Amino acid sequence: MAGDGSDQRALQYEQTLMYGRYTQELGVYAKEEAARLRESGQRRSVSDRSRTLDLLEYDKGRCAKCRICTVRCQKFLISRVGEDWIFLILLGLLMALVSWVVDFCIAICLQAQKWMYGGLDSNVFLQYLAWVTYPVVLITFSAGFTQILAPQAVGSGIPEMKTILRGVVLKEYLTFKTFVAKVIGLTCALGSGMPLGKEGPFVHIASLCAALLSKFMSLFGGIYENESRNIEMLAAACAVGVGCCFAAPIGGVLFSIEVTSTFFAVRNYWRGFFAATFSAFIFRVLAVWNRDEETITALFKTRFRLDFPFDLQELPAFAVIGIASGFGGALFVYLNRLIVQFIRKQKAINRFLMKKRLLYPALVTLLVSTLTFPPGFGQFMAGKLTQKESLVTLLDNRTWAKQGIAEEFDYIGHSQAWKHPQVNVFVTLVLFIVMKFWMSALATTIPVPCGAFMPVFVIGAAFGRLVGESMAAWFPDGIHTDGTIYPIVPGGYAVVGAAALSGAVTHTVSTAVIVFELTGQISHILPVMIAVILANAVAQSLQPSLYDSIIRIKKLPYLPELGWGHHEKYNIRVEDIMVRDVRYITLNCCYRDLHNVLLTGHLKTLALVESAESMILLGSIERAQLQSLLSQQLGRPRRLEYIRERAVAEKKRLSVVSNPDSEDGSQRVSQEVRFQISTEESTFSPVRPVAQKPLKPALKRPSVVERPTEIPTSPQDNSSIALKNLFCASPDTEGLEDDGDVEDDMTIREIAEWEEMQLDEQVNFNNCKIDPAPFQLVERTSLHKTHTIFSLLGLDHAYVTSIGRLIGVVSLKELRKAIEGSVTVKGVKVRPPLASFRDSGTSSSENEATELHKLWDRHKSMSLPREHTPSESDEKSQ
Amino acid sequence: MAGDGSDQRALQYEQTLMYGRYTQELGVYAKEEAARLRESGQRRSVSDRSRTLDLLEYDKGRCAKCRICTVRCQKFLISRVGEDWIFLILLGLLMALVSWVVDFCIAICLQAQKWMYGGLDSNVFLQYLAWVTYPVVLITFSAGFTQILAPQAVGSGIPEMKTILRGVVLKEYLTFKTFVAKVIGLTCALGSGMPLGKEGPFVHIASLCAALLSKFMSLFGGIYENESRNIEMLAAACAVGVGCCFAAPIGGVLFSIEVTSTFFAVRNYWRGFFAATFSAFIFRVLAVWNRDEETITALFKTRFRLDFPFDLQELPAFAVIGIASGFGGALFVYLNRLIVQFIRKQKAINRFLMKKRLLYPALVTLLVSTLTFPPGFGQFMAGKLTQKESLVTLLDNRTWAKQGIAEEFDYIGHSQAWKHPQVNVFVTLVLFIVMKFWMSALATTIPVPCGAFMPVFVIGAAFGRLVGESMAAWFPDGIHTDGTIYPIVPGGYAVVGAAALSGAVTHTVSTAVIVFELTGQISHILPVMIAVILANAVAQSLQPSLYDSIIRIKKLPYLPELGWGHHEKYNIRVEDIMVRDVRYITLNCCYRDLHNVLLTGHLKTLALVESAESMILLGSIERAQLQSLLSQQLGRPRRLEYIRERAVAEKKRLSVVSNPDSEDGSQRVSQEVRFQISTEESTFSPVRPVAQKPLKPALKRPSVVERPTEIPTSPQDNSSIALKNLFCASPDTEGLEDDGDVEDDMTIREIAEWEEMQLDEQVNFNNCKIDPAPFQLVERTSLHKTHTIFSLLGLDHAYVTSIGRLIGVVSLKELRKAIEGSVTVKGVKVRPPLASFRDSGTSSSENEATELHKLWDRHKSMSLPREHTPSESDEKSQ
Repeated sequence: MAGDGSDQRALQYEQTLMYGRYTQELGVYAKEEAARLRESGQRRSVSDRSRTLDLLEYDKGRCAKCRICTVRCQKFLISRVGEDWIFLILLGLLMALVSWVVDFCIAICLQAQKWMYGGLDSNVFLQYLAWVTYPVVLITFSAGFTQILAPQAVGSGIPEMKTILRGVVLKEYLTFKTFVAKVIGLTCALGSGMPLGKEGPFVHIASLCAALLSKFMSLFGGIYENESRNIEMLAAACAVGVGCCFAAPIGGVLFSIEVTSTFFAVRNYWRGFFAATFSAFIFRVLAVWNRDEETITALFKTRFRLDFPFDLQELPAFAVIGIASGFGGALFVYLNRLIVQFIRKQKAINRFLMKKRLLYPALVTLLVSTLTFPPGFGQFMAGKLTQKESLVTLLDNRTWAKQGIAEEFDYIGHSQAWKHPQVNVFVTLVLFIVMKFWMSALATTIPVPCGAFMPVFVIGAAFGRLVGESMAAWFPDGIHTDGTIYPIVPGGYAVVGAAALSGAVTHTVSTAVIVFELTGQISHILPVMIAVILANAVAQSLQPSLYDSIIRIKKLPYLPELGWGHHEKYNIRVEDIMVRDVRYITLNCCYRDLHNVLLTGHLKTLALVESAESMILLGSIERAQLQSLLSQQLGRPRRLEYIRERAVAEKKRLSVVSNPDSEDGSQRVSQEVRFQISTEESTFSPVRPVAQKPLKPALKRPSVVERPTEIPTSPQDNSSIALKNLFCASPDTEGLEDDGDVEDDMTIREIAEWEEMQLDEQVNFNNCKIDPAPFQLVERTSLHKTHTIFSLLGLDHAYVTSIGRLIGVVSLKELRKAIEGSVTVKGVKVRPPLASFRDSGTSSSENEATELHKLWDRHKSMSLPREHTPSESDEKSQ
Repeated sequence: MAGDGSDQRALQYEQTLMYGRYTQELGVYAKEEAARLRESGQRRSVSDRSRTLDLLEYDKGRCAKCRICTVRCQKFLISRVGEDWIFLILLGLLMALVSWVVDFCIAICLQAQKWMYGGLDSNVFLQYLAWVTYPVVLITFSAGFTQILAPQAVGSGIPEMKTILRGVVLKEYLTFKTFVAKVIGLTCALGSGMPLGKEGPFVHIASLCAALLSKFMSLFGGIYENESRNIEMLAAACAVGVGCCFAAPIGGVLFSIEVTSTFFAVRNYWRGFFAATFSAFIFRVLAVWNRDEETITALFKTRFRLDFPFDLQELPAFAVIGIASGFGGALFVYLNRLIVQFIRKQKAINRFLMKKRLLYPALVTLLVSTLTFPPGFGQFMAGKLTQKESLVTLLDNRTWAKQGIAEEFDYIGHSQAWKHPQVNVFVTLVLFIVMKFWMSALATTIPVPCGAFMPVFVIGAAFGRLVGESMAAWFPDGIHTDGTIYPIVPGGYAVVGAAALSGAVTHTVSTAVIVFELTGQISHILPVMIAVILANAVAQSLQPSLYDSIIRIKKLPYLPELGWGHHEKYNIRVEDIMVRDVRYITLNCCYRDLHNVLLTGHLKTLALVESAESMILLGSIERAQLQSLLSQQLGRPRRLEYIRERAVAEKKRLSVVSNPDSEDGSQRVSQEVRFQISTEESTFSPVRPVAQKPLKPALKRPSVVERPTEIPTSPQDNSSIALKNLFCASPDTEGLEDDGDVEDDMTIREIAEWEEMQLDEQVNFNNCKIDPAPFQLVERTSLHKTHTIFSLLGLDHAYVTSIGRLIGVVSLKELRKAIEGSVTVKGVKVRPPLASFRDSGTSSSENEATELHKLWDRHKSMSLPREHTPSESDEKSQ
């Protein structure tokens, strides 16, 4: 059972691949492997049983039954630990605690700032210093800390999670270091009082938690190693992240689905709901236990009247909020991207900022906090309120303005901040909206862990409030004509505005649900839904969502969505977008062809066809496999082998004809010897760990067993060392072992000659990992269907075949191009209306594509090397 | 442009298949086809343009520009009509109107019953007669009407929609007749006051609306013919159905997703939200316009207090409701299935009921209405309340009971029904729950259009009310200890109970959202979520959902879900469940092999491999294709052809040697002649309409053009007639045309001999539709992944290959068996805990499987014959 660990790893790896991979002809290997696995499983259970029996024997005198019971209980518990719901409860609990602690720390930070600011009210300059220095220090610390510990923790996290759930592996993205950096960085960043949110980061933190918990739990059971399960758990974790951030389980699940998934498995639905509900529950219970609340209620509870929440004639106003929010949301995304691109393009600024990485955050914080300084400009925009306080006041169910002028409404608590002796409440609101808008767009570009959802939410609420107050001023007695007077509730408008603007920025409908859960009231459901849908309709036709925009900025591998009902997609065919010049290798090609193919192209996988004439697709081979094949064929170990062989032949010849000039003679006979070797040598597996099938070559080609030390012995190659160890005891190897110390005495010319000869040999694919069922499409498959399949199965390329014959290949790149509208078919330029506005953001598509390829490369090389790939280190033909 | 219509049809068909189908080697055909299509598209646009130009010429004198403008506007409008949102708005509007009209009619029916009952209060017997006769007549009419017009309209519709969205085509399920039957049947059934719901039927009605609207709209534009688009629209329609039924857009979308989908495309999300919101909006606006409501509010508005909705210590009570509802829900599903199976098994009853189809509904109605007769037993179970009234009273925010005894609570309106002078309110509630429980389970088996959601919802509310009243009686001053007294709100418990029980029966979490939208309050979100999740956990481990249960009863083709975290699924491999004895045909087989394969197996598709030795999978061919190939080879037209040929040869021989004994001589030379013919004859396409590629055989084999009348002229074969017409003018056919009237003068023995000879010929697959890329798996693919792929892509079988070599096949049947636990792997019997309880319902799995195959057969034969398949009528080898 020595190879158990590697078996486990190999097993796990194989489960991640859809099509598996087999190295031997006719699937014999797979069957053996399956039989072996089952056998080992039986053996394990037998050994378990025997251990129990041993215990029984050992403790016969004492309370043996008790012992056995304990063992069984332990086993039962461990098997239970493997169940999903335990994992989800733990995840929910953990995230609720994290969320609560983060909130608590943020509150303390903000209180500290207020306290400092309040304590220094004798001197405005000192007050200003305190007001400004505090956030600058916090943000700078956050940026620095994140930069040093884990730069992956910067930003929202939702774009990255979207990419990860698409099947891409992002390096270092789900590690403990990132977790620490994200949590501490986020706390400091939000504690500074800058207009930043915690939602996006919490999605990331929850995913980190899930990944770490998964790793931890795998110490107990084995199921946690399954990749598809991990993806399912990550999807649930995203829901938990949103859920425990807003105490909004339903909205959390829906928002996380909308934001991270393309296709959602309904069977995962309950996982999200379960974990998010538990998390939200614990999160709110903690507040009750901490005596912050009397019982579990909504986070931003509203108290609108229930019997007549709004009049039917107010609906146009709600629709206006929706449409305006749509434009606003698109503008926000555009502004955010513009700032990033501006800073990137200005080489001078860029170079300067790159050197002093902490300067940019500090400068931005300085600017923002200076403008919000309450005795300064802040007095006109409720600058002294924190984000939470402003939201609470904005959702207030009292009307601030009546008859067009700001009246003496009974300012209770924080609402006072909105009142300015000289300035109308409308002016305050407008200033608040405008200033916060660009401040938020700017602040979210700071390299700290932060989200944009909450700032946008507050701006939306303010905008809704503005419209609501205007309506209240316009119709002081309400619109309803007959009977009772129902005054207009501006707070309801604020709710609608918040949902609409955040929906527009994130391109989601579920912000409506989040709003209901946040406010604890669902009475405005229809206005909210109408506004959110209108906002989405407008924003989606103008700009990508904020997360997609970040994906583009960060150049993550992505596949754009098919837009709102662009039915031209049904008319484009794969044949219109496929690459017809496919790189392929034939079954009977020689190593020289392999070499040429590897030199000229840079695709990750190559098609394997039967012959250049028939072009029947047999499978696909990864580039790394071919490289290892080639390097195996040309590598030093094999050359040493050749020299040794030559020496042996020489010796034999010497012993027969007693001719001492070995050097020249051996070269003369080398050809016959070489061919003799090569037919057997190439059965050596360059990649597969030997533990998995140590005796397979022996079964197939008995001659190998007779000459086992012909297998090369490169020091890096653990598997071959293992093999050597395995065979060491074999008696017939001893006679040859003294040849191990042959010198590499070939000249460069000789080596070149030798390599030339090697290149002419036919490739032996026996031990090469071939994906026997790469995904195939036919020419007539529509773009719509292709997109669906690519999204569903997370493909990055598919071959186009016609009755088994390879005629083209489609990769994500072509698909993306086609969707984004650079392909014209039947005279129709396929692009969304108003897309020209969007072009400015996607000009550098060529760069993106190469970046994409790099990322894929990384992805591939990261998901592969669970198996030992020794030959990659000494590749020659990269 | 004569073949345009059939082109369109063929195009449409091709879009429905994922992998397309090509009849000629090496994809040449596809390229030609694509080129041809594009050309015709260009031609069309050219002709459009020329038409415009014609107009320009024609109207030069008059307001030509005006005309052109009109044409353009018209075109623009027509193209707009094709956009999704227009369709969705129309669908929403239509469904809102239907929902409102149905509700209105139901209300009138119920009022009429009350009026009759109230008017006859002098005589109890007359009262009873009126109370009982009215529903019996209505239900009998509904059952009869549905039976006569469209039996497909019976029942809920959700199970069928689930099957349809899975990709199966159910016959006659989305027709106008079904629409009429469903709407009228549903109105009558619900107007009778029986415990039935309108939710399920509304999902079906909305889908019907969408399908009909799609057909109607396709008169304007061409996009409505796309199958994937139709599926998307059907998914949106399901959301609309729930949304406009409860005025619950969000809950509607979520519920429809949970109930009908396995994998949900997030890009369809907005469609559902958009249409459902619009529909719910119109539905509620109609109520306002009808002066039923002052403004748009929830359907069953509650008025619970907002500031302290529930105490933390009440949560255990809510959890108890959840768990009890879970058991209750499972019991309901079990009871429902038991009743159906009992009636089916009792042969005597069954035969009697089959003869008098309307007797069963009448009897059930009589029983139920007798028991609810208000002066009789109905007085103990609030029998005189309609479903809607009971729900309103149950959700009331006042407490009915205090200190353990029913107090004189101020009975306003319908609440009085719950009060009985002698009997405690608890007894009334218990009786209500128990009686309604079995009544609902029984009533939903009546063959009328009806759902079970609403009855279950009411029962759940009553159960919640019962627990709530008990709690209120137990803690008269509330549980909260410090400070203010917050009495317990039993109405909140009713909300929780309603959501939990309906969630348990349907296995959905989104009933929580529906409840919030129905009541207009979200304050109880955490209790509701906790109860719903617990109820789901319990119910899902005991029984399938009501809809899955109906799917099993109706034996619809389905794929069971993977249960709650049964991680054994990750350890089963395809190789454990696949069928290794695959039926295949080789590329070089003869017709005899084909014949044998068709005789012995009954699979829908057969694998095409290169040869029996290599077993390289080239594609799959449908059974019907092979049958038509075979019948073509052995059919009468071809035999007549042979006779004609023979006669011609005879004539020639006569003209040369002048020997009169033709009969014997022709038989002697028949062999040579036959072979000469057969090589050319077999290029004739048996299935493909000739309009698609009339000249293809000519291009490939010039000899055919020289002898065009050799093509058989069976009267049913339109395509060959068309071909004949095409070639009729050709001069070299005239000399042979007098042979058209040859007599079928072969004896049976001769025919048998001839057929034997034909069977030995090699099959020519040239004109056979081959799916060149059937879905392939490898042996190591896990069951979990296989299930995912099958669900995602809607497959019904997949081939298992190993480097292109076919080694097995997996179909839905095997997959279902594996999931339902009849396969044991590694000693673990894969089945959910407590599954033994479930077994009683699935004993007849073998019957199901055969039924399934029949359904698939039907599905296949329905989705195929968009193309003309003349040879199916004269098949010999079925």
